[in-house]
Formats: sequence, C-alpha cells, structure tokens
Amino acid sequence: SAPYTPIRATLFPGDGIGPEIAESVKQIFKAAEVPIEWEEHYVGTEIDPRTQSFLTWESLESVRKNRVGLKGPMATPIGKGHRSLNLTLRKELNLYANVRPCYSLPGYKTRYDNVNLITIRENTEGEYSGLEHQVVRGVVESLKVITRQASLRVAEYAFHYAKAHGRERVSAIHKANIMQKTDGLFLKCCREVAEKYPEIKYEEVVIDNCCMMLVKNPGLFDVLVMPNLYGDIISDLCAGLVGGLGLTPSCNIGEGGIALAEAVHGSAPDIAGKNLANPTALLLSGVSMLRHLDLHDKADKIQNAILNTIAEGKYRTADLGGKAKTTEFTNAIIDHL
Amino acid sequence: SAPYTPIRATLFPGDGIGPEIAESVKQIFKAAEVPIEWEEHYVGTEIDPRTQSFLTWESLESVRKNRVGLKGPMATPIGKGHRSLNLTLRKELNLYANVRPCYSLPGYKTRYDNVNLITIRENTEGEYSGLEHQVVRGVVESLKVITRQASLRVAEYAFHYAKAHGRERVSAIHKANIMQKTDGLFLKCCREVAEKYPEIKYEEVVIDNCCMMLVKNPGLFDVLVMPNLYGDIISDLCAGLVGGLGLTPSCNIGEGGIALAEAVHGSAPDIAGKNLANPTALLLSGVSMLRHLDLHDKADKIQNAILNTIAEGKYRTADLGGKAKTTEFTNAIIDHL
Ligand SMILES: CC(C)[C@H](C(=O)O)[C@@H](O)C(=O)O
Ligand SMILES: CC(C)[C@H](C(=O)O)[C@@H](O)C(=O)O
Repeated sequence: SAPYTPIRATLFPGDGIGPEIAESVKQIFKAAEVPIEWEEHYVGTEIDPRTQSFLTWESLESVRKNRVGLKGPMATPIGKGHRSLNLTLRKELNLYANVRPCYSLPGYKTRYDNVNLITIRENTEGEYSGLEHQVVRGVVESLKVITRQASLRVAEYAFHYAKAHGRERVSAIHKANIMQKTDGLFLKCCREVAEKYPEIKYEEVVIDNCCMMLVKNPGLFDVLVMPNLYGDIISDLCAGLVGGLGLTPSCNIGEGGIALAEAVHGSAPDIAGKNLANPTALLLSGVSMLRHLDLHDKADKIQNAILNTIAEGKYRTADLGGKAKTTEFTNAIIDHL
Repeated sequence: SAPYTPIRATLFPGDGIGPEIAESVKQIFKAAEVPIEWEEHYVGTEIDPRTQSFLTWESLESVRKNRVGLKGPMATPIGKGHRSLNLTLRKELNLYANVRPCYSLPGYKTRYDNVNLITIRENTEGEYSGLEHQVVRGVVESLKVITRQASLRVAEYAFHYAKAHGRERVSAIHKANIMQKTDGLFLKCCREVAEKYPEIKYEEVVIDNCCMMLVKNPGLFDVLVMPNLYGDIISDLCAGLVGGLGLTPSCNIGEGGIALAEAVHGSAPDIAGKNLANPTALLLSGVSMLRHLDLHDKADKIQNAILNTIAEGKYRTADLGGKAKTTEFTNAIIDHL
C-alpha cells in the first residue's frame, strides 16, 4: 500500500507527441508508486468564451482546485479571435515565475560540462503585455510594462528558491543602462529583496554580457532572475548548453502556491504517434512537480532512473542519437527505478 | 611610394586601454603602408552643448567629412545631463546598421570550430528609443519603436551585404509571435527586401530558438539581421562563441556611406597604461574599415598577419592566456606582414 495519501494533480497531455510522452510519465510514476491521481484534460476543439481560448474552463478549474499540474506541449491552433494556449494559462492562473533548472546530464556529452544553473523568469508582464499600436503608417510601438508588484514577487521567489535549495548566488539580468526606468525598477526590487537575504550573494549582469559569459563559462552562474523576455531568451540559451528543450524541465509558480510543471519544447507533429518522442523534459518536469509537493524521495528515485538510463546510453531516443522507441526508453527507466 | 592617394579617416582612440590599442593600429597600418591619414579626436572634458555629451562637435564633424572612422572603447562619464557617448554617435551620425563578423580564429581554441557568421543589428530604434515613463507609482513602461523606414534600411543593408560577400542566407531574428505589430513590421520589411534577392535564401527564426541553435550548432547560421536589442544580445553571444569581444570586429554603417568601425569591448581601466591590452578587436575593426574602403589587399595583408600571429601562439596577450605585452604582440604582427 502506498505510503502517502493520494494527491490529485491535473495532467494536460497536450497535442502532437504530448499524449505519448504523458503516457510515459503515467507509467513511470505508477511503477514508482507515486501517490498521485491524475485528472486529465485535453485542449478543447472550440473556443471557450470563458477563457477566450481553446482551453476549457474546466481544465483551468482543475488546476485551481488541485494546485498542481503537469503540462505537455500544446500547439496553439491557427486563426484569429482567441489567445495562445500558453499565454492563457499564464494569465488565467497568474503563473508569475517560470523556473527552469538546467544541468548537464551525466554521460550525455555536449560542449559544456558541469552546467548547473537555474533560470527564474518573470512570466506575466514586461514585453508580453500585448499592448501594441500603430502610431502612423509605418511606425508601430509596443509597450514593455514593469511593475513593482510583479518584480518584487519574482525576486522574492528567486531568493526564497536559492535559500531553500542551498544555492549561493542570485544574478539579476537586465538592460538598465538602456531601459533605466523599466529595468531600473526591476533591479531596485531585486536589491530590496536581496537585503533580506544577506546569506545569498547578489549581483547584477547586463543581458548582452550575460549571454557572452554563459557561452564562455556557464559555471560563473548559479540562480538567474530576470524580466519576461530576457528569461525567454536566456532559458532557451541555457537549455541549448546541455542539449536542448527536450531534456530540460520547467515549472510555473502561481499565486497561492499553484505549480504547473511543463515541457517547453514543441509538439513535434512530424513524429507524433510514431513512438519516437523523447519524454525526458516532461518526465523531469514531473519530477519538479514532485519536489514542489515535497515528495523528494519519489522525485529522487525517478530522476535517478532517468539520468541513469540516459547515462548508460543503451536506450536513447533518436533526438539523442539513439534508436530506442519511446516505450523502450520508458521501460528502461522503469527497470532502473 | 604609396600606391594609393591618402585617405583621411577619423580616429577616436577612446579612453582606458584605448590609446594603447590605437597606437598598435597606427603602427601596423603604417608598416603595411596603408594610405590613411588619421585625424585623431579625443573625448572632451566637458559637455559640448551641440552634442549634449562629452563628444565634441568637431569630432562628429570629422567623421561626417571623412565618412570613415575607427573608434576605440569610450567609457561614458558618470553623472547626469548628458547622453552616452556610444548612443550619441549612433544618433548623431545616423549609424543605422551595426555589422559584426564573427569567426573562429585559427589556432585559438574555444568550444566551437568553424564559426563563420555575421550579425547585422538595427542600431537606431527599437528598445533603444529612450521613451520611458512612470504610469503610476510602481508601474513603469518603455516604448519599443519599430519603423518601416529603419527596418527596410537595415534589411536592405543585410541582403546587399550577403550578396556582395557571397553569403547564402539571411535569417531575420524576431519575437513576432509575441510582438506581432512591432516585430511583425520588421519581418514584413525583411520579406519585401528578400523578394528582391531571389539568389539569397531567407528564413525567420524566433530569438529564443535562435539562441538555443547558436549554442548547439552555430554552423546553421550565415547572416543574421534583427532589431536593436536582439542584435545587442546575439552579437555578444556570438562573440562569446569565438572567444569574446576582445577578438571580434564591428563596423557601424550610416546614411550616405559613413562607416565607423569600432571595438565594442570595454575600456578596461584596471589594465590601462600597463601595456597589457589586446588590440585585436580594434585591429580587426580597422580591417573592416579598409574593406569598406575597398582596400582589400591591405585588409587581407593585415588580417592575415593578425590571424597568423595568434595562430602561431608565441605572442599572445594575457586575455588569451599568453604573456606578451601589447607592444610585443604588435611587433609580432608587423613581422608577419
Ligand atoms: C511559445 C511562446 C509564446 C513561449 C514564450 O515566448 O514564452 C515559449 O517560447 C516559452 O518559452 O514558453
Ligand atoms: C554600452 C551599451 C549602451 C551598448 C549597447 O547596448 O548598444 C553596448 O552593449 C554595445 O553593444 O555597443
């Protein structure tokens, strides 16, 4: 019998390769006796007026109620009159921090060894305000919005995270030499929070310099916190250092303790349904979710099984240069549990 | 006697290590019998009301008249009431395109081989509009401005450059999935220009994905063109791939055929005056300037001498792990001419 009371969690398998990799997660979590009952929700086939998107109101209610969820890739349907699925989730659930751990996978060689950093991205405002207009023909503007509230909130999360995970340093990434007011406010908030965490080192790094340092020596960084677009850019760059978005987990933190873990890679329609997809990013995102629930023994067990399977190298999916099917890779992980 | 009529060019030695590395350029250009007469201009000691900065009006007039110049690092003096030196130059001289070739230096090992790409950055607008305001306490906004005129102009330059240099492909870097109007207009302009260059392949790459691809496989790219901030970020990232800003040249192109080549690294006040600085970025920027003047034989001669000196590895400055003084490295290049 399971050592824990079952926890209900929302599962969005998503589309494309989503259902296959979600199946892999379900099987591995079951084999590891993770005390989770999944509540599965698919993207709807028509626009739900309550969400203004193809996401159903029920699926959002499910995350609001369960407070934890796991999300596969979702391709936003083409056409007008609705909002992007990812952006709708972020807005409707107020997912204010996107946390992406990024570490070298033992045995999977890239140009970089020993990468071990965390990017924490403000996920609700900045360049993603959606406020754009044409001033006159041929002149358009978009508004970047930075607020004290959202900046303090994500800075708090970053320092809290650094402390809870025994990290040494938080670097705030910015371009305040050019955007003195917006990025300046973001930095001001980071400094205020930094004062409350004297045990965590704090530094500020200009984004262009940060990208150069990351490709030269990613070991220089520990926890990075930044406005929305910089986070979008730098988290993908960092994923690239260790092999790409197919290997890196992500977790969105919302108000009231909501955690929606998410594989941020695409839905790869070209290989969907062919048993070729690599479930690693979704699996490791599931592990992030377990850690959020303080199920660290289960998280460790599954994470080790994933990393050992990849390190062993016998079963690797095509994207990692191997020949294993999704199901073979999944079974190998189960054998490593 | 020199085989060409002397050409007058403006030289901004800049501050910090600037004068030392400018001296290196002057000596090497002289030894290579480059038919250039330098007109040297230093940053002023007080604000010139006509430029609203520490740059003198005379120095700007010098570039306007000569149409070519070379610029060392300039640290913007601290304090209020004046504009950044770099931004003043860009605005006053309408330097609309910043061109940064980025290639692996033979014999100087980094994690990447055979990098060979060109970033072309829109240099006058976008996130650098300087338009920022506080809406209410704790809520600030900055305006990103994209115009059809500036976007067409830099796109034209990119395709023209690609064609003139036998390049195969131009990639426009954007985030139009989020900033549909601003980055959307930028892309629309690139597409219009692309139609006029059917022999050059054209593609569009989202900036986050671009950064991931660059660190995984920079060989996928050829010429990249993009709005201002993306160019700031990506050009530094690319410099990092081949060793950093101390090794990569840059050239700013302005209306009416102005070319202001520039070392984009800092002025390194900590090692200033110690004969330790690496003049490579300024030298290679000088080479860019020569190419702009169609002095390709001199450009090749100097570029080869620089690359051979670095490849040989006997004389390398401290930043490249060597022990050579600036003057020793300079003399070694002269010996290789
Ligand atoms: C798909 C896109 C809108 C999204 C973003 O820009 O945030 C993606 O790049 C991400 O990082 O989740
Ligand atoms: C110093 C700074 C204002 C400048 C910029 O952001 O353009 C620099 O990073 C550059 O790339 O020349």
